[in-house]
Amino acid sequence: MKHFLSLNDIDSLPNLVEDAIALKKSPYQFDALGKNKTICLLFFNNSLRTRLSTQKAALHLGMQVLIMNFGKEGWTLEFGDGTVMNHSTSEHIKEAARVVSQYCDILAIRAFAGLQNKKTDEAEEVLRGFRKYASVPVVNMESSTAHPLQALADAITMEENKTKAKPKIVLSWAPHPKALPHAVANSFVSMIKMQHAEFVITHPKGYELNPEITHGCQIEYDQAKALEQADFVYVKNWSSYSNYGKVLHQDSNWMMTQEKLGKAKFMHCLPVRRNVVVEDAVLDGPQSLTTEQANNRTFSVQIVLKKILESL
Amino acid sequence: MKHFLSLNDIDSLPNLVEDAIALKKSPYQFDALGKNKTICLLFFNNSLRTRLSTQKAALHLGMQVLIMNFGKEGWTLEFGDGTVMNHSTSEHIKEAARVVSQYCDILAIRAFAGLQNKKTDEAEEVLRGFRKYASVPVVNMESSTAHPLQALADAITMEENKTKAKPKIVLSWAPHPKALPHAVANSFVSMIKMQHAEFVITHPKGYELNPEITHGCQIEYDQAKALEQADFVYVKNWSSYSNYGKVLHQDSNWMMTQEKLGKAKFMHCLPVRRNVVVEDAVLDGPQSLTTEQANNRTFSVQIVLKKILESL
Amino acid sequence: MKHFLSLNDIDSLPNLVEDAIALKKSPYQFDALGKNKTICLLFFNNSLRTRLSTQKAALHLGMQVLIMNFGKEGWTLEFGDGTVMNHSTSEHIKEAARVVSQYCDILAIRAFAGLQNKKTDEAEEVLRGFRKYASVPVVNMESSTAHPLQALADAITMEENKTKAKPKIVLSWAPHPKALPHAVANSFVSMIKMQHAEFVITHPKGYELNPEITHGCQIEYDQAKALEQADFVYVKNWSSYSNYGKVLHQDSNWMMTQEKLGKAKFMHCLPVRRNVVVEDAVLDGPQSLTTEQANNRTFSVQIVLKKILESL
Repeated sequence: MKHFLSLNDIDSLPNLVEDAIALKKSPYQFDALGKNKTICLLFFNNSLRTRLSTQKAALHLGMQVLIMNFGKEGWTLEFGDGTVMNHSTSEHIKEAARVVSQYCDILAIRAFAGLQNKKTDEAEEVLRGFRKYASVPVVNMESSTAHPLQALADAITMEENKTKAKPKIVLSWAPHPKALPHAVANSFVSMIKMQHAEFVITHPKGYELNPEITHGCQIEYDQAKALEQADFVYVKNWSSYSNYGKVLHQDSNWMMTQEKLGKAKFMHCLPVRRNVVVEDAVLDGPQSLTTEQANNRTFSVQIVLKKILESL
Repeated sequence: MKHFLSLNDIDSLPNLVEDAIALKKSPYQFDALGKNKTICLLFFNNSLRTRLSTQKAALHLGMQVLIMNFGKEGWTLEFGDGTVMNHSTSEHIKEAARVVSQYCDILAIRAFAGLQNKKTDEAEEVLRGFRKYASVPVVNMESSTAHPLQALADAITMEENKTKAKPKIVLSWAPHPKALPHAVANSFVSMIKMQHAEFVITHPKGYELNPEITHGCQIEYDQAKALEQADFVYVKNWSSYSNYGKVLHQDSNWMMTQEKLGKAKFMHCLPVRRNVVVEDAVLDGPQSLTTEQANNRTFSVQIVLKKILESL
Repeated sequence: MKHFLSLNDIDSLPNLVEDAIALKKSPYQFDALGKNKTICLLFFNNSLRTRLSTQKAALHLGMQVLIMNFGKEGWTLEFGDGTVMNHSTSEHIKEAARVVSQYCDILAIRAFAGLQNKKTDEAEEVLRGFRKYASVPVVNMESSTAHPLQALADAITMEENKTKAKPKIVLSWAPHPKALPHAVANSFVSMIKMQHAEFVITHPKGYELNPEITHGCQIEYDQAKALEQADFVYVKNWSSYSNYGKVLHQDSNWMMTQEKLGKAKFMHCLPVRRNVVVEDAVLDGPQSLTTEQANNRTFSVQIVLKKILESL
């Protein structure tokens, strides 16, 4: 693997999931692989799971870790070509990417969608800027439109918990007081499309995801109908895509409850707002896989770093 | 040792102090103990000594260290049971604690008193929240009501510097422009009560500490009288406990001076406001143990981490 | 080497450059030297290159690294002698320096000029404060008046790229919208004065650097004339020294262009404002050495740390 920007950088998802599960059994077995190798984590946004799990994975592989909170500790970046930089930005992505590449062997980047401008967000200027100008492999720790490491952790979690060859998986929109990006939902959909599964997406009208991503997927506006006989229910809020970045409404009828869940396993990437997105009974009950999803974040990033280290 | 939330988690203070002093002579002697073990430090408040000494201690033991400035780099936590999280908090302590436990073997937490509400502070919701929901041992790096690692460092420092079997120790309140928590004073009192010592607490009326903690201690409102024949004088400001979190006055007559100190050793946990809490002559003179107290912070946390690692 | 506060702490610049170039060929060859040694990096200002390259260098030497963003994560420092600290500062440099020295073997500090008060900046109270009260070696990661690690990286870069024994080197002022410190220019001048080179400084009238530093240097107000036959052109903005910290004007005629550069190599310490300080064509062209300068930051600090470790 050269870079890991999206799930498209994976050769075979089932093989990668299998390798990650093997790694999880003995996390330090490849700790010689990262000796004298350094990963630099650049955060343009806050992070808890990603920050800790990526460090942990790198340490499992024997790597050294450098961390920058870019906005707070570094300089404001310019992305425009040919810009006369006499305003607020003080360093160009070209220099930043070339320079950071001097200090590490792998570069991992988190930069969320601004949700103000669809075109800007879809241009992924931070992630693609580093990809374009960096001289080392780049890993996506959640960008404007994708969170492939989360999707990979979710795939691992489903593989470990499925009880039939072709489970029914439902992605169910949930209400939320703030406008959230589409990255997690996008990557989840892309990941499921690589799986052997029955898949339904359910959300209120107006909350359709990018049709290029959901192309070929079953969309069901009746949540109850979508949830029938589900094996895994993945709950997530996202803002409107067509009315870009807007919270159209926060219909609390869409909150996930134990009753709606039935016998399905519950999944969410966290952080989650209790009793808004999902009720306490689900999160605190035995059907919730959220803690295990978080645990698998370590092994999703570790298998990706391992593949990249092997190709250096 | 399973957790280290307060001095009550110690079996025998004299034995622990003795072990810490032995460790100090050869800090890296147990560096195999922490191999492939990770400690995660969560800071809800600023820190200098605690941040650096805890890292140093973990590195002495061969551990890996992850650090989060929680408020600045992560998500705002919710502590209420059953709360409908449609306001400012974005992650519940239940998830945060369960998740962080996936990435480390020991969890260390700093969360100061807010000094707005005695009940909330005494509930210790951050520390106890993590203790309740984490699946790994929790270490207190200063909570609302206690700073046991500081008290342990103070005990080590007194053991190294005492010249008689039963020294006279005085805890003397000092003026300060800001309202400060009671954590350091509380833990100092609790620690001294485990020692063979003559102990006097002195402060102006109105600055009485929590009577449950000072129960059985001699309280003397006349500072001069309290300081007579003292061997160790521990100076510290704290805000009012009865009139919770208030600065009643900043009587500069209570500042510690070389003249008042006499032949006693001077102690303070730092940071200290010079010429407000204590005059320059004391801090810069040979009777000050403050630098050595800071040095012993490393060994107080190291001995605690060692005991926890041994019980994993 | 005991401390590294300025280039004056170097015995022989040519020898140090030669050693750094040898180190670069095999960066991990001295990784046993730093075993069980800790460096603490204290940042009073933002940093990208310095933060990452210093960590990388320390890791190359097998050291452990502690990092503090002082203002954001620690306490506000007091520098005055005898100050009654009943205002905003909460810890004195005396305590901070003595305490931090307990947790590390080398202390590295970044603290920029405030550019409000020449006397205060030239007093270098942060750097000199730590130097005075710390009990461990101190390294300057850019102070009010000097950035010797940058100058050393520049010397390494010129040594690697020079094609004649006595090259012509030009330091050329550039326009910039913000008032910038003199530290980089000062150290560059001091470094060149230790070299076998023809050296010209060019800038508009009013932008003269500290005459104590440029004493003996050729100053040419005509940029075109200064650039004739140059081998290396080092471009940098700085604010006025005589009218301290002021931006007198931002004459865009002083921007470096490919045409002006001719056949010379282009150098800049970064971050750089494109099309204000220098045009895109130069930075993106083959004559730019900026990425290599950034790379050499690692080896400049590594050779300094190595010398200090050897003298511990």
